[in-house]
Amino acid sequence: MRTSVATVCLSGTLAEKLRAAADAGYDGVEIFEQDLVVSPHSPEQIRARGEQLGLSFDLYQPFRDFDGVDEEQFADNLRRLESKFRVMQRLGMDLILICSNVATATVDDDRVCASQLRRAGELAAQYGIRLAYEALAWGKFVNTYRHAHRIVELADHPNVGTCLDSFHILSRGDDPAGIAEIPGEKIFFLQLADAPRRDMDLLSWSRHHRVFPGEGDFDLVEFLRLVTVAGYDGPVSLEIFNDSFRQADVTRTAVDGLRSLRWLEDQVYRELDATAGADPASYPVGLAALPEAAVPTSYSFVELHTGRLGEITKLLHQLGFVLGGYHRTKEDFQVWVQGDARIVVRDLGPTGSDTVIDSFGVDVLGAERSAARAVKLSAEPLIRQRREDEAELHGVYTPDGTGIYFCEATGDGVPVWAEEFGLVGEDVRTIDAVTDAHSRITGVDHVGLAQRWHRHDEAALYFTSVLGLQAHAPDAVPSPAGYVHSRVMSAPQGDFSLTLNVAPEGSEQGDFLAASYPEHVTLEVTGITGLARRARRRGLEMLPVPDNYYDDLVSRFNLDEETVAELRECNVLYDRDEHGEYLRFYTGTLGTMFFELVERRGDYAGHGVDNTPVRLAAQYRVLRDAARGIPS
Amino acid sequence: MRTSVATVCLSGTLAEKLRAAADAGYDGVEIFEQDLVVSPHSPEQIRARGEQLGLSFDLYQPFRDFDGVDEEQFADNLRRLESKFRVMQRLGMDLILICSNVATATVDDDRVCASQLRRAGELAAQYGIRLAYEALAWGKFVNTYRHAHRIVELADHPNVGTCLDSFHILSRGDDPAGIAEIPGEKIFFLQLADAPRRDMDLLSWSRHHRVFPGEGDFDLVEFLRLVTVAGYDGPVSLEIFNDSFRQADVTRTAVDGLRSLRWLEDQVYRELDATAGADPASYPVGLAALPEAAVPTSYSFVELHTGRLGEITKLLHQLGFVLGGYHRTKEDFQVWVQGDARIVVRDLGPTGSDTVIDSFGVDVLGAERSAARAVKLSAEPLIRQRREDEAELHGVYTPDGTGIYFCEATGDGVPVWAEEFGLVGEDVRTIDAVTDAHSRITGVDHVGLAQRWHRHDEAALYFTSVLGLQAHAPDAVPSPAGYVHSRVMSAPQGDFSLTLNVAPEGSEQGDFLAASYPEHVTLEVTGITGLARRARRRGLEMLPVPDNYYDDLVSRFNLDEETVAELRECNVLYDRDEHGEYLRFYTGTLGTMFFELVERRGDYAGHGVDNTPVRLAAQYRVLRDAARGIPS
Repeated sequence: MRTSVATVCLSGTLAEKLRAAADAGYDGVEIFEQDLVVSPHSPEQIRARGEQLGLSFDLYQPFRDFDGVDEEQFADNLRRLESKFRVMQRLGMDLILICSNVATATVDDDRVCASQLRRAGELAAQYGIRLAYEALAWGKFVNTYRHAHRIVELADHPNVGTCLDSFHILSRGDDPAGIAEIPGEKIFFLQLADAPRRDMDLLSWSRHHRVFPGEGDFDLVEFLRLVTVAGYDGPVSLEIFNDSFRQADVTRTAVDGLRSLRWLEDQVYRELDATAGADPASYPVGLAALPEAAVPTSYSFVELHTGRLGEITKLLHQLGFVLGGYHRTKEDFQVWVQGDARIVVRDLGPTGSDTVIDSFGVDVLGAERSAARAVKLSAEPLIRQRREDEAELHGVYTPDGTGIYFCEATGDGVPVWAEEFGLVGEDVRTIDAVTDAHSRITGVDHVGLAQRWHRHDEAALYFTSVLGLQAHAPDAVPSPAGYVHSRVMSAPQGDFSLTLNVAPEGSEQGDFLAASYPEHVTLEVTGITGLARRARRRGLEMLPVPDNYYDDLVSRFNLDEETVAELRECNVLYDRDEHGEYLRFYTGTLGTMFFELVERRGDYAGHGVDNTPVRLAAQYRVLRDAARGIPS
Repeated sequence: MRTSVATVCLSGTLAEKLRAAADAGYDGVEIFEQDLVVSPHSPEQIRARGEQLGLSFDLYQPFRDFDGVDEEQFADNLRRLESKFRVMQRLGMDLILICSNVATATVDDDRVCASQLRRAGELAAQYGIRLAYEALAWGKFVNTYRHAHRIVELADHPNVGTCLDSFHILSRGDDPAGIAEIPGEKIFFLQLADAPRRDMDLLSWSRHHRVFPGEGDFDLVEFLRLVTVAGYDGPVSLEIFNDSFRQADVTRTAVDGLRSLRWLEDQVYRELDATAGADPASYPVGLAALPEAAVPTSYSFVELHTGRLGEITKLLHQLGFVLGGYHRTKEDFQVWVQGDARIVVRDLGPTGSDTVIDSFGVDVLGAERSAARAVKLSAEPLIRQRREDEAELHGVYTPDGTGIYFCEATGDGVPVWAEEFGLVGEDVRTIDAVTDAHSRITGVDHVGLAQRWHRHDEAALYFTSVLGLQAHAPDAVPSPAGYVHSRVMSAPQGDFSLTLNVAPEGSEQGDFLAASYPEHVTLEVTGITGLARRARRRGLEMLPVPDNYYDDLVSRFNLDEETVAELRECNVLYDRDEHGEYLRFYTGTLGTMFFELVERRGDYAGHGVDNTPVRLAAQYRVLRDAARGIPS
């Protein structure tokens, strides 16, 4: 499948956009006219640069307000159009986008539009140029793809075809099934854009809120399947108007977009493979598949790096972890275990940075295949130094720089790497210094990663495409320094999940939750109050919960005083739904991370998001007071 | 008029919110429950703090999903409500907001709702508490203020009244005229919020996009007039859910909000004064007027401060300005003049900062009154040091720190301060070293000020309320580092205007247009190409305009080659509408400012915004290349 991206998706100058598109690995680009107009480089220079970078220039766009006008206006429109043909010749291009008329159309007559397009096609033919006519969703008379295609049929000229844009079709709720009836050779171009469902006017939605395929709510798999089956053989191109992309790093946006196309191609391939008779690879668009995604089933380990070893090992001890062992060759690595939770700690020495979540391991069936898939999806490989007798862990970086290692799931649940720490067989689980078997940590529930606001959608798509997770709707959680946007990514089946959190950036109330927004490791617990009491006896400093919260809890849930007193004593937050209960407490923040301890009772389905503002307010106060030099 | 603000409008902790509200000068606050719940201070401590700060606690809010439920649910709701009464007693409060039921209502029967409210009122009476029942715009059965009032009438209990919220009424397009029919004593509370018109769902619009009165599109003057005439005698309170406010500096947001209320009060006072028989001050709400706004008619001067005196005087010379004189006592001040344009330059010496726009003077009738009005609207006074024989210029700071001096307009157009620079009478205009009278600067067209994104609405309201300007709809202008949002503020009559520009903050494409986003002084010109040529001969470095722009210009406007050649030679940008033409060029950036030179021909009405991306792209390239050490 040939891939393309409209330069309007990308930030920077035209030269920077071309460079980023080539580096990411697109086959071609759409040249957005405004990018050319503001460029100091001539069309010839730009053409040469494209050739040097190996990029085809697939579509010149947009040409607006052409059709459905009176003859006088038409003459001027044709003059305007011909001047674009000359620019295109200088650029070495042969396809231009003509949008259905929004502003100047006065004639609502398909024959007039068709005749005007045919005459344009005749002129275009003299320049060796073809016209792709597209229905804008807010076109004055022509605003559906079926209507645009009818006019193209009436125009009946070899140089006149149609352009399909998923946004203009799906945003209106049009049924894309009719695409199958358009002859593939009359589909001159295909533009894909996804978007989150918004109840707002089409134009604003389109201009500011488009996202890459897989990052929104449209069914682009079905859309591309229909275009594939129709016999389209051109490039599959991204045309995304998005305010964030306009100010995000151009290189990363380009990679994000290509990942979305590779993911989509794979999805369509599998869909066709599962349902149709034909070989998916045989369609003219040229689909290929990726190695299959292996959805993680659990966390094999979480790896922290720290220049404050004393702090973190004290905390792990307070929580009931025991030191499982040291890595037999990498002396700066140690592992702490409890139940199925394993925290690998790398000692950076006293000059090292504060504690951070460096990486985590996930258990999958097919580790090598998973890593290969990730790399095909433009994930940067993460190479683990190892000796021959040590496990080969295939890893990649996530967009925020956290590492993921794919750990081959074993029959007995003992990690492939455990033996390197001297943990043999069931040792990895049975080592347990905790006396009270009813109050203990049973495993890692999830990891919470902080994301920059530009990169929320990119991160979600990364985990969707690379790990096969599903993105839930984001929650906006109020904090004293602005909203934190929190999103759960979870396995379609099974318990595996992680969360992505975007803190308010540039908050004038201090950067307490932005640059330093803490990541977290959430641990599953049974007997949370017992565990909290024991941890407290060992000196754990928990994140304080205000008395007012517990007063309110009585009102909200009509809990008995005894229960609330116990929660209050243990700094445990409480939530309930019709299926069960959710209890949790937090440790203080070490470096840029903290631990959350959660107990689910019954089949509680949520993530306790109603309680998150309490945590954020407490963390804000601690960080603010620290900035003011007040001991927390 | 008593003023109040809901704590949910403000960022920070509850303690920080109370402090900011008191500092700004509000009479009271609404306590938003969530702010209390996450606070580490007990209700008693918060009550004491309020008393210490002189703030009344006007409304406890919100209580949700109370009415229209079955008896079992009602019993639990009453229990929940009573627990709030106890909290309110601890806070020393006597009014609670009850929102119409959104989530749990099952009984669509006004008598049931009324009976439930009456029973709540009976319980409330035991605590000395009153209930203000409000129709949410998305309430399940009750979603209009008339309906809420009908139920309050049916409830018929002295402790049950209604709360009016402008957003919930005006967002639905409901006619507020019916407010006049509600007895004033049954309006227990008034919440005001404005909002920009958005074609989106009510809930998202309300939760994220409310703004202070005067910052949006609702007619709150008429709204408050109706409530005033109805006989309401309580506080006028702000309840604004806004994502930016949540992360903006709490002190500034509080001041911004109070300014909106003072402005609104003044507007309503004048409206009633002009139309009704009664004295506006006699209504129970207690309206007062501000000193009248004097709308500026022109710029008296623009004052630049610079540590690069050589650079700026060279540029002024290149543009045809002449050195008018030095201030007779402040030796570091000089003025450059041409036509009615006067640029005051303060020499900060070689250790001073780069060139900045420090302040500007505006010509008004009633300078002292204008300054008094500004100060009543919480503008910070700007004191000019002067001797007894020097003009007293009353000044204030704008929210972004730029100074404004109010200069009393004189009959002969000679500024009151001119004589201090040795400019007597017509000297101020006639000094002119320019040989070609057809190509010259005639005056200052406007000043363009950079704003932080949190502060766009605040700045617009400032200039609306303090200077009596009108805010135009903002334009989103694409740049290589993201959208720049540009807004024209102009006098309702006359030519005076200024622009507010918000650059993309935190752009990953470099901070080229954010922290260093340049401000500008726009000069009116006749004979722009002649002026450009002369300036070029004198060595002016203009902002370069790409050839591609001129190629495209031919296509867009069908201009003849000769005209385009002249524009191209002079780096002049061109726009046209049905009324006339608009030509302009830009100087390079000095420090954080540049000059724009514009010529309007005919009655061109726009601001040439279609050409602004060309400037932004060129400035981006210059700044980027400078960052990379490439000479521009």
